[in-house]
Amino acid sequence: MKFKMIHENYNVSDLDRSIKFYNEALDLHEVRRKTTDDFIIVYLSNDVSDFELELTWLKDHPQPYNLGECEFHLAFQAEDYEAAHKKHEEMGCICFENEAMGIYFIVDPDGYWLEILP
Amino acid sequence: MKFKMIHENYNVSDLDRSIKFYNEALDLHEVRRKTTDDFIIVYLSNDVSDFELELTWLKDHPQPYNLGECEFHLAFQAEDYEAAHKKHEEMGCICFENEAMGIYFIVDPDGYWLEILP
Repeated sequence: MKFKMIHENYNVSDLDRSIKFYNEALDLHEVRRKTTDDFIIVYLSNDVSDFELELTWLKDHPQPYNLGECEFHLAFQAEDYEAAHKKHEEMGCICFENEAMGIYFIVDPDGYWLEILP
Repeated sequence: MKFKMIHENYNVSDLDRSIKFYNEALDLHEVRRKTTDDFIIVYLSNDVSDFELELTWLKDHPQPYNLGECEFHLAFQAEDYEAAHKKHEEMGCICFENEAMGIYFIVDPDGYWLEILP
């Protein structure tokens, strides 16, 4: 019985702000959206894989999300690690560097951590 | 500047228990691990995509993880949705059904939600 990992969902409190961030920081763009009276779901992707990031906005949840200890993250392999680090430094979104492991983390507008590795 | 989504990390409090669950529920198996004095990282995958699930176990974190509102999830497309639902029903791990959307969620041993869709 086969199961294919196809997306990771993060709920966000401001869709436009998140889409702008993921576009600028990670070159992801909207590929489709589903809109209802209660929620909007937006799928972000790029042309280097078919895995998608799903952003869910709930009408009834205007407040910030409680991420608990935030001990989870989506990881991105950078084609050019040095250039990525420079860009994220300029954006001011680097939240943790692990030089021993040769990776760093950026944080999205809702507080979700994203790992960048070479 | 290209960024490829390559894995999602979830921190877990009992590696063996999690590996057993992901193997049984989603046919994921260990492809490699990194062991240090402070942590063990295990990567799980299968042959239907190159995206991986990273499980991190921290020596200094024996207590359950605080997942906050848990408004995030990794999604799996089932090759055979009916058979998957039957299996997960038997395992007793279904935590939420959304029949209107034609999807359901299972929960892993640490409380992380996983979406199953056709």
